[in-house]
Amino acid sequence: MPAATTASGKKLQKATLKKLEALALGVCRDLAKTKSPAIDIPLRTLSNVNFNAQKRIIEMGKDTQQRFFFNISMVKKFTETFYLSNECRQLIEAGKTTSLRDLFYMAKPDFEAASREEYEQEESDAITEDIEVTVDSLREELNLFASNRGALVGQLTIVDQGDTIDGRRMGSGGWSIPSIVEPNIVQFKKCDAKFILLVEKDAVWRRFNEDRFWEKYKCILVHGQGQPPRGVRRLLYRMANELKLPLYVFVDNDPWGYYIYSVIKQGSINLAYESRRMAVPDAKFIGLSSFDREKYDLDLSVTMKLKDEDVSRAKQILGYPWFQKKEWQKEIRNMLKEGRKLELEALSRKGISFVTEEYLPGKLKRKEWLD
Amino acid sequence: MPAATTASGKKLQKATLKKLEALALGVCRDLAKTKSPAIDIPLRTLSNVNFNAQKRIIEMGKDTQQRFFFNISMVKKFTETFYLSNECRQLIEAGKTTSLRDLFYMAKPDFEAASREEYEQEESDAITEDIEVTVDSLREELNLFASNRGALVGQLTIVDQGDTIDGRRMGSGGWSIPSIVEPNIVQFKKCDAKFILLVEKDAVWRRFNEDRFWEKYKCILVHGQGQPPRGVRRLLYRMANELKLPLYVFVDNDPWGYYIYSVIKQGSINLAYESRRMAVPDAKFIGLSSFDREKYDLDLSVTMKLKDEDVSRAKQILGYPWFQKKEWQKEIRNMLKEGRKLELEALSRKGISFVTEEYLPGKLKRKEWLD
Repeated sequence: MPAATTASGKKLQKATLKKLEALALGVCRDLAKTKSPAIDIPLRTLSNVNFNAQKRIIEMGKDTQQRFFFNISMVKKFTETFYLSNECRQLIEAGKTTSLRDLFYMAKPDFEAASREEYEQEESDAITEDIEVTVDSLREELNLFASNRGALVGQLTIVDQGDTIDGRRMGSGGWSIPSIVEPNIVQFKKCDAKFILLVEKDAVWRRFNEDRFWEKYKCILVHGQGQPPRGVRRLLYRMANELKLPLYVFVDNDPWGYYIYSVIKQGSINLAYESRRMAVPDAKFIGLSSFDREKYDLDLSVTMKLKDEDVSRAKQILGYPWFQKKEWQKEIRNMLKEGRKLELEALSRKGISFVTEEYLPGKLKRKEWLD
Repeated sequence: MPAATTASGKKLQKATLKKLEALALGVCRDLAKTKSPAIDIPLRTLSNVNFNAQKRIIEMGKDTQQRFFFNISMVKKFTETFYLSNECRQLIEAGKTTSLRDLFYMAKPDFEAASREEYEQEESDAITEDIEVTVDSLREELNLFASNRGALVGQLTIVDQGDTIDGRRMGSGGWSIPSIVEPNIVQFKKCDAKFILLVEKDAVWRRFNEDRFWEKYKCILVHGQGQPPRGVRRLLYRMANELKLPLYVFVDNDPWGYYIYSVIKQGSINLAYESRRMAVPDAKFIGLSSFDREKYDLDLSVTMKLKDEDVSRAKQILGYPWFQKKEWQKEIRNMLKEGRKLELEALSRKGISFVTEEYLPGKLKRKEWLD
């Protein structure tokens, strides 16, 4: 089955093909002018990453490096860039998608034969990221997929590869969120949701689904099995923007939970170049908060002591430009002061469905979230 | 929504409740007779595990230990057993399910208050396993769930919590396999499948789904994201037995792949007591085989060197009673001789869809599998 099933999907794929071709044509033009062929590759280094306070996302800067063909230290990477971009072209033309691991294996024997050195996947992954930033296409637009994690239920009908998925009738399991959710594959239909709720853990998501929270509170319920994979992030982005829905993030109260929220909201340093197609700067942090233990009268024994690495991670997060709001500083400092972390499951102590019947409805009603 | 939506589901839950009550009534009877209350708990030790060659599964033996109430070293565990079995009773009565982590948090403050020692989840998990074997109910029948991993597409219609899920219309994502797939939650309807294919990796599963392998070859296509979680194992068991379908397991050619296959087929040593409700002794190993590299003329560079731990693991597997068939010894010894392992993705070198169009159809046609 071809990946592009809709007119707009075909258009998107065509546009990506054009960009890959343009990259190759640039080299041909250089050669025709007897110029040393070169490509400009945006720099994916920390020095070229910054927080755009206006857009409220982590962005890649404008620095680039040139990669030359006639340069002994660059010729290998130069060649690999075109080998792999040609593989992507073939994928798109065949309407097929594949994993980075597959791509690595497709190329490995040739790369090793040419260089007589063992080839590692880190190398082909890095070149793939170069291609992404150079032609300005998401990996998913190059028909490459990452991990298939996370699930969705709720007040939304989705079309996935031509099949209609009604989020209201997905049982206890839900729709398994695919790794590529670009518009050529996934489209949104009937939406009755008022918001999106991302729950960090699948076990807690199950509680919300079993209690049919999404029905009562008219929402779309998503989990990403811990740190959400790219497919989930991209889907959240698309739903938040195209369906104009607020997104609430519900995570453990520990530095890892803050981090999950922050990646959803402004993107990550490592993948800064993808923020503008994945980050949701309006995402809200709905809990758990370091003030919840006292507020909800939870026994101290359901909290856990912060480990040394938690403390240093929390201190690091305190310094991030995107956590400088007064409320956030208060939130993080209070966790450090208490010296404890609190997991979502700890709320079960107040009753199995306390989280779906009291905790979250109350927070939503009182607009008790951090921005 | 109550967990039991069907008459048979309600019956199942009632039967589990009866077993939990019987456990408690035994203690009451002991007390009435002024006998020291005791429960018999089947031993979950290696010495009480054996391979039943006739049933072809790993089983728990008949050894039990007594747990007394009037015994200073046992009273804590004795009490915990009834505390937690009472929590399970309440779950079943409320028609709700929960995770082991939730259960731990529900009990932690009380256990700590009583013992004045810090309570760890390992302890409540162990007691829960005691309850499982003592009342002879799967954890899932006690309404406790594990991880939510894995997905399914293909020629089967499923009812999940009353919602109809058509495996033929699940898009690229598939139905996310829930952690509890007991008959009170999941039922099978229209099945047009001739077999079940379990693929180790979600990325390879995606290839099979995209190529609509399940449509052409009339099968049910499942992945478990590596070592399948309990929900996936239990679902495979139920489909293989209730739908009378052969099950083919498709894994990397390395000791880990052999192990995944062997757990599916005869169960694991750790969870020996669940084999008879999870193991599928007729499961077939369809690849990758250590002979495939040569047979399919794959470049040596797409294989990887066995690490030391791979070699020792393979030697250990060679000795397992359930790997004593001549063909299996040949298979494993050949991997050791070659000193290489081969990942599913390596087949991509022969073409993106080589695996779905040539490799697997050929193996199925020639009945080229190991049993």
